Amino acid sequence: MVRLGGVTVSERSVAQNAQLALLLEVTGTPKPGNVDRKREYDDLRFEHFMAGAVGARRGLDRAAAGDPLGPAFETAVEGMAGQSGGNTQFGALLVLTPLAAAASDGRLSPSGVDAVVRGTTVEDAAAFYRAFEHVDVAVDDPPDGLEPLDVRRGSDAVPELRARETTLFDVMESSADIDGVAAEWVSGFERVFKASEWLLDGSGPVADRASEVFLELLAAEPDTFVATRQDRETAVDVQERAQAVLDGAETATDLAEEFVRRDINPGTTADLVSGSLFVALERGLEV
Amino acid sequence: MVRLGGVTVSERSVAQNAQLALLLEVTGTPKPGNVDRKREYDDLRFEHFMAGAVGARRGLDRAAAGDPLGPAFETAVEGMAGQSGGNTQFGALLVLTPLAAAASDGRLSPSGVDAVVRGTTVEDAAAFYRAFEHVDVAVDDPPDGLEPLDVRRGSDAVPELRARETTLFDVMESSADIDGVAAEWVSGFERVFKASEWLLDGSGPVADRASEVFLELLAAEPDTFVATRQDRETAVDVQERAQAVLDGAETATDLAEEFVRRDINPGTTADLVSGSLFVALERGLEV
Repeated sequence: MVRLGGVTVSERSVAQNAQLALLLEVTGTPKPGNVDRKREYDDLRFEHFMAGAVGARRGLDRAAAGDPLGPAFETAVEGMAGQSGGNTQFGALLVLTPLAAAASDGRLSPSGVDAVVRGTTVEDAAAFYRAFEHVDVAVDDPPDGLEPLDVRRGSDAVPELRARETTLFDVMESSADIDGVAAEWVSGFERVFKASEWLLDGSGPVADRASEVFLELLAAEPDTFVATRQDRETAVDVQERAQAVLDGAETATDLAEEFVRRDINPGTTADLVSGSLFVALERGLEV
Repeated sequence: MVRLGGVTVSERSVAQNAQLALLLEVTGTPKPGNVDRKREYDDLRFEHFMAGAVGARRGLDRAAAGDPLGPAFETAVEGMAGQSGGNTQFGALLVLTPLAAAASDGRLSPSGVDAVVRGTTVEDAAAFYRAFEHVDVAVDDPPDGLEPLDVRRGSDAVPELRARETTLFDVMESSADIDGVAAEWVSGFERVFKASEWLLDGSGPVADRASEVFLELLAAEPDTFVATRQDRETAVDVQERAQAVLDGAETATDLAEEFVRRDINPGTTADLVSGSLFVALERGLEV
């Protein structure tokens, strides 16, 4: 750290802040339904998130160095997947890589990151599809007419991407209504930037702020990962229960225990928390 | 990961494994008296260890790249200190940097790391002293006659180091009887390598194995950080209490609560756990 007129400023690089965002996200507790410092699943444990964050770093470095976004993301996912827990941070990396690219370019703002994602190419889309070959990700069936572009086809879908000249931004746009991370891509990362303000305006341990921001985001919109793995009705129920915690009618800890028991994992909301932590760190959030 | 004949092998680099060792060490719980995933102090929190591990990476990269050990260590400490909790992993980095240097050189063995530490120079010692300027570290008074080399003098002691031609190995040798990390430096990292075998022979979550190995090490010898901050008597009492846990006469969780309350922090033992996790990861411990 350097002290400038009494203010402490971290000297962490963009990639270091992105890696730290991954670590702080999973540190925040309670985060009902998600793996956190105090709760884990038998086959998806806290330690897998540690290893995921370590492995992702090379891809985050690439994003921060200005490499094309798709290959940087694929590298991050490949490294993240180098642990036995499976998918830990796929969605978080899909949030973080464009933010890291924008930050290292001095334009970490809704319009700046919007320009980054709209500048993606067909080759970025191809790398995104290849990323699905490194790890199992729970996804919905593609919309009608887009079956040839089902992400579960991995690199088999690449010729079709090229034939249709589909960019990575186009891919995100096509699933923005069913995927909360894709929705961020097409909206200038609106919820991420808003949540970063909450983090910066808060006080106390950063991990506690991350936990609060998680609940605020969860109460605001249905989590699309829950909608994919369970159904829309469950996602709406989860949203209402999060609001009940904010209203003081339930405790976050009880909700956390129940969601883990029911295998309800609002992972998309956690991905947005990672993004908001990164933006806040870049804007001076002190750890 | 790559799968070779059914065996999964991580493709993490030496520096990545060193960073992961820092993260897994603090993930292990309970580790009586130490910050872990479920216990922290108001001013020294789990999140500070996350930021410390992120910041240390640049120095670990230098050690793995074959840079001189002292400057690599100083870089790691400077980066580690870039958070508001103070000293999180000074001792762990003093264990990890020589191990990382040996590993990247293909000689991660007691004799290999012994050659690394015995090859250190006066300039390595100078960098080690400068590292104390980046963070407050609790240390004992120097032995009689070594007051001019009190580490708390930082770079002011460098002319004296040069005049006496004191290498970093010499510095460690002079405090090996009062500092458990220095004792490792002069003994081929004997306890670290032994504990790495326990980790590899164990089963179940790596974090649980780290917690068990911590107790085994704590029960075997008095923790020198406790001896420094409290006194020798307390360190021996802590050792006996750890043995009582291993004997089933006390629970690790109760001991953890009590030690945190009494501000008894067996930090040197935690440093050795970090080293043993690194060796085990390099030798195939799967996360």
